[in-house]
Amino acid sequence: MAPYAPPPAYFKVEELKRVFDHDNFDKRDAFRALADEPLFVPRHNVSLSYERELALDRLKRVSETKMISVFDFEKNPLNVMAAHELAGMLDPSFTTKMTVQYNLFGGTVLKLGTSRHRKYLHGVDDMSVIGCFALTELGYGNNAVEMETTAIWDPKTKEFIINTPSVIAQKYWITNVGDWSAVHANYAVVFAQLIFEGTNEGIHAFLVRIRDESGAPCPGVSIHDMGKKMDCNGVDNGKLAFEHVRCPREALLNRWSDVDEQGRFKSTITNRRARFLKVADQLLAGRLCIASMILGSAKSSLGIALRFSATRETVGESGKSDTPILAYQLQQLALVPLLARTAFLNCGLHVAKRAWSKAGPETPPLEYAEVVRLCCAIKPLVTWHGERCASVARERCGGQGYLSVNRMAQNVGFSHAGITAEGTFVQVHYPAGAD
Amino acid sequence: MAPYAPPPAYFKVEELKRVFDHDNFDKRDAFRALADEPLFVPRHNVSLSYERELALDRLKRVSETKMISVFDFEKNPLNVMAAHELAGMLDPSFTTKMTVQYNLFGGTVLKLGTSRHRKYLHGVDDMSVIGCFALTELGYGNNAVEMETTAIWDPKTKEFIINTPSVIAQKYWITNVGDWSAVHANYAVVFAQLIFEGTNEGIHAFLVRIRDESGAPCPGVSIHDMGKKMDCNGVDNGKLAFEHVRCPREALLNRWSDVDEQGRFKSTITNRRARFLKVADQLLAGRLCIASMILGSAKSSLGIALRFSATRETVGESGKSDTPILAYQLQQLALVPLLARTAFLNCGLHVAKRAWSKAGPETPPLEYAEVVRLCCAIKPLVTWHGERCASVARERCGGQGYLSVNRMAQNVGFSHAGITAEGTFVQVHYPAGAD
Repeated sequence: MAPYAPPPAYFKVEELKRVFDHDNFDKRDAFRALADEPLFVPRHNVSLSYERELALDRLKRVSETKMISVFDFEKNPLNVMAAHELAGMLDPSFTTKMTVQYNLFGGTVLKLGTSRHRKYLHGVDDMSVIGCFALTELGYGNNAVEMETTAIWDPKTKEFIINTPSVIAQKYWITNVGDWSAVHANYAVVFAQLIFEGTNEGIHAFLVRIRDESGAPCPGVSIHDMGKKMDCNGVDNGKLAFEHVRCPREALLNRWSDVDEQGRFKSTITNRRARFLKVADQLLAGRLCIASMILGSAKSSLGIALRFSATRETVGESGKSDTPILAYQLQQLALVPLLARTAFLNCGLHVAKRAWSKAGPETPPLEYAEVVRLCCAIKPLVTWHGERCASVARERCGGQGYLSVNRMAQNVGFSHAGITAEGTFVQVHYPAGAD
Repeated sequence: MAPYAPPPAYFKVEELKRVFDHDNFDKRDAFRALADEPLFVPRHNVSLSYERELALDRLKRVSETKMISVFDFEKNPLNVMAAHELAGMLDPSFTTKMTVQYNLFGGTVLKLGTSRHRKYLHGVDDMSVIGCFALTELGYGNNAVEMETTAIWDPKTKEFIINTPSVIAQKYWITNVGDWSAVHANYAVVFAQLIFEGTNEGIHAFLVRIRDESGAPCPGVSIHDMGKKMDCNGVDNGKLAFEHVRCPREALLNRWSDVDEQGRFKSTITNRRARFLKVADQLLAGRLCIASMILGSAKSSLGIALRFSATRETVGESGKSDTPILAYQLQQLALVPLLARTAFLNCGLHVAKRAWSKAGPETPPLEYAEVVRLCCAIKPLVTWHGERCASVARERCGGQGYLSVNRMAQNVGFSHAGITAEGTFVQVHYPAGAD
């Protein structure tokens, strides 16, 4: 087979690239250069624990380069999404760990915390603080507002007591929490029903230390790995439970509600349901993060499939194997519409990202509702599309598409993770339609 | 969550089961009982070599029970397909090894061989002969008739010399051939251009010893493992090449062509293209085998998803998590049409299997062409459907569907293997439309 030599483009490639890149051009190019580092060379047929350490090492490398920072949410929010898109082209596992570290964990501490929590944010950036986002419970993945975990205020010691009252109340799918195969996170943002003087004040978020300096789980904290998955096996998903774990008053991320030094509960939000939506707000950015990383994976699936199709030869008019499969309309009709839709969704994601990046506490409710709709609509559209790109690319590359080295399989599994993470389309479309 | 207790059926379950089972009822029930044996308990997070030995052990166990035999092609052809469907519910890897051992290898020796090859067939049944089907070459997966491997007749020694002249001529994707991680096959049916006195007489099949008693590759035979795949990692796919490997005159599977003791070539088929179609005929049964095993996997995906949906609870009218997700139309509309289509394709496969099982050398050409069409049409229909069942079931089971233990991921990968194996739909539909 002849080496691949693409024909000269009849348009300005660099300009088209800028259209799709949209923002942070230099940072994006720097991120792309990571692919050439030995650390980012794909590894296959490795153990679960190796894969997890590799994902952590890659995340640490990205943290070193400062290509993403939790402070981007304040200074350059579009860069968070740029990093996710580029990372999604490289490795689903480290990307998933990254989105939890910087967005779900870091972003929540940034936005729900106050000055007393700022010190942890520097730890997020330099990875001395590795965090989990402990919202989902086994029995309430589809009904989080009913979660069972409690944080009971103890007025005597001025502490919260975090407790997991049942098996189905254990925090489930918690990225970065690991267990035997990954001793990574030392902190978790834990969501729990705040019980104050016998009254359930609704779901609040607490910054809880879960492992000590030695890496051992803190007293009362139990952690269990969730085992082998469809893909993203470098992600150390685990189950997390608390047995009357005490944490100080300051653990409450107190942007909207607080218990003051005198032990009085106060909140600027009166409605319990509204309190939950406020504390789970980082899931909104999360949906853009997921859409961005799966967009990256869709581009990688199609890029690999189109290059292969241009070089893989099959029977031509002479009967000899001298014609690239891409010369066949059948191959074109399978791949090119997916390419067009990728471009279309890329631009749609720009619209959602821009709207989100401009929104803030001062945004009028009706306008903010539109931002929510955009974020909730783009995530399922992109992740379903990512699944189709990976699956069709796999099929159109035949046997080669089936080999792990060619990364189609990984992108099928990655898109499936994206489809489910932070709510399937039903749950996501529900707020999109209701708000 | 309440334990699963299905409501009483308002029809006779056993009768419906017989409709879908179609044939070999007792053998099918015996095969189903294998699922309870410890050997068939699914294993995850194991090494490639462990997975391969496990697949071999499972195949040996099935061989012990005599639930499938290569002589079924003569005595009870529908049982071959029954075994494939049931095996496909248990484990994609051992099923894939089984279909090569009994159908592609065993079936080819049975149908293309003559009395001098019968002794090997008993070896197929008792697994003392483990075989490969070495047709596909790296450069000619989509144009097999142009393959480069040669079998040159040496009139001096009355031997054939099998040779792989180039890198792209190596036999590729060869199941059971293994390498470092699986020393399984000792024989291969090798397809090669037969060169007799300087003339290319077309593609013929040869029964070639590839490993000696110790398990070492025979002189001139080189074997390389193909590494990690999307799934079916218990299948020891490998690359196989020959460097002037000599094999006796009797190695030629001589049902249609032969070189006699006096060293004269003769063939009952004059056309070279027709010779290829004749020697590759076992691929026809192969397509029914693949359709059968992927039908089994589709049933397993849907069975698991429907049971889960009937027990997994989500928010009901009260706002509490007390209503099974299957009560939602959205869940029903995702899964029930796939169930209906599975029943439909199951019956379609019966039609194709019956037609194939009744066809033989005496079948009139026009009638045989209809059998070919049925087999070539049902295989892509069932395998695409299997992919949709597994992928949608995965999505509709949320996070649980993503855990390997729940086997959706495995069925996604298995269906993808089925889509590609023995020709994607283009190649398969081509004979379906052309003949």
